[in-house]
Amino acid sequence: MPSRTVFVVSDRTGITAELLSHSLLSQFPDVEFNQITLPFIDDDDKVAKAIRQIDEVADSEGHRSLVFATFVNRQYLTRLMTAKAKVIDFFDAFVGPLEAELGVPPAWRIGQAHGIVDKARYASRISAVHYAMDSDDGVNVANYPRADLILVGVSRSGKTPTSLYLAMHFGLYCANYPLTEDEFERDELPNILQPHRQRVCGLTIDATRLQQIRAERRADSDYASLRQCRYEIENAESLFRNSNVPYFNTTSISIEEIATTIISKLGIRREMLG
Amino acid sequence: MPSRTVFVVSDRTGITAELLSHSLLSQFPDVEFNQITLPFIDDDDKVAKAIRQIDEVADSEGHRSLVFATFVNRQYLTRLMTAKAKVIDFFDAFVGPLEAELGVPPAWRIGQAHGIVDKARYASRISAVHYAMDSDDGVNVANYPRADLILVGVSRSGKTPTSLYLAMHFGLYCANYPLTEDEFERDELPNILQPHRQRVCGLTIDATRLQQIRAERRADSDYASLRQCRYEIENAESLFRNSNVPYFNTTSISIEEIATTIISKLGIRREMLG
Repeated sequence: MPSRTVFVVSDRTGITAELLSHSLLSQFPDVEFNQITLPFIDDDDKVAKAIRQIDEVADSEGHRSLVFATFVNRQYLTRLMTAKAKVIDFFDAFVGPLEAELGVPPAWRIGQAHGIVDKARYASRISAVHYAMDSDDGVNVANYPRADLILVGVSRSGKTPTSLYLAMHFGLYCANYPLTEDEFERDELPNILQPHRQRVCGLTIDATRLQQIRAERRADSDYASLRQCRYEIENAESLFRNSNVPYFNTTSISIEEIATTIISKLGIRREMLG
Repeated sequence: MPSRTVFVVSDRTGITAELLSHSLLSQFPDVEFNQITLPFIDDDDKVAKAIRQIDEVADSEGHRSLVFATFVNRQYLTRLMTAKAKVIDFFDAFVGPLEAELGVPPAWRIGQAHGIVDKARYASRISAVHYAMDSDDGVNVANYPRADLILVGVSRSGKTPTSLYLAMHFGLYCANYPLTEDEFERDELPNILQPHRQRVCGLTIDATRLQQIRAERRADSDYASLRQCRYEIENAESLFRNSNVPYFNTTSISIEEIATTIISKLGIRREMLG
């Protein structure tokens, strides 16, 4: 398999450039990429050092390097362009066409993408993360009237990471509630969730996958037995169907996909905060 | 202030397109953008419906719409291009140049960016989130030998959201430990942290900002008084300096900036997982 060193270079965090580079490079699965991220390249010395590092790799690999960049400081980008590299700058590609489309010049302000643009908005994001922490795993049910949504499912069906993602990136107040054997007998949504049923979303998972996840936590326990996993999942799915709660299977999808699917299913207005 | 409706359209989650659009649009602070995200546009009917929605907005606003897209299915993109819109497709712009640079064709595989590409990698990300949850606020110190890093600071200095971000996006095992008055007398890193001091990073914050954050939690308490906030912060900073722990002020930077700064300061190999 051919391999290439890829640099992600930015005068800020480099997070946007790194995520975009992953999206793009994932379309070339037959090349092995070795990624080096250089964030906060925000003075002349750092730019010079980055160029030296990029050039050294180009010399040692025998071809120019590949660089994904996001620079708000255009002088630094211009200098970076002199490196022995194919430089793809995400702002460079799109800000020009956007300027033409919008009819106004760009501000070239630093720190907009992941900076604190709006203090109230930022504070609400932090509050949402603390809310998700404080409302994890069925605790603080008194918080539920404040919830934007409540995730329900058996232990280790993906509720906690998804709640945190929804809080962190969408500022949503997300509680989560574990279904346990006590609740299966009634085959209905637990009473505590009834007043909030419009905001409840169920998560389910394949029994074999659940068994693996639980075994990592408590090997050789009844909790992690395939029999127990099957029993809980069948009952949870029956409960979701019976109480008309939307639910879906999270086995082969990522946290990002789970989170955005939930937002779509519940019809929540979506806006990412970072 | 002029306003524009912006569509984010994707046959997957749309997360990459949404983040990119935020980065780009933040460079045009004098335009008010109203964003509509249409994820999972993955069949002919959904494409047709998206085009109708985009065209309606164009007609009502009196100019073409602005669309940020990421489509792995190129037929859907081609159809979307017929909408009354300026369509910026992120793959379209860069996959061609990358193909030329790498000398191999793109796979156009769906679900690579935020899908579960590598099960082991994905499982480690989930484990890291659970580790951060279980090691929050000084609990389970027995877990510290497993930590990639330990964040230290006074209550509400930003430790918890940062720990979760580092876990979620970098797969790092991050614990956090709150500094309390008991620890200030010695003016040294608490004993429990001594064996791990190479992996400790301190967070500090302006007293006035800390006061605001604490007041939201417990208004009119001694905990939220400016005097108490000042006292704790001064002592925490003294402790960091005295014990040679790297630390920095988080007051006016975002979770993303805090997280990437920590990774840089501790010299941790950085690779985002999603």
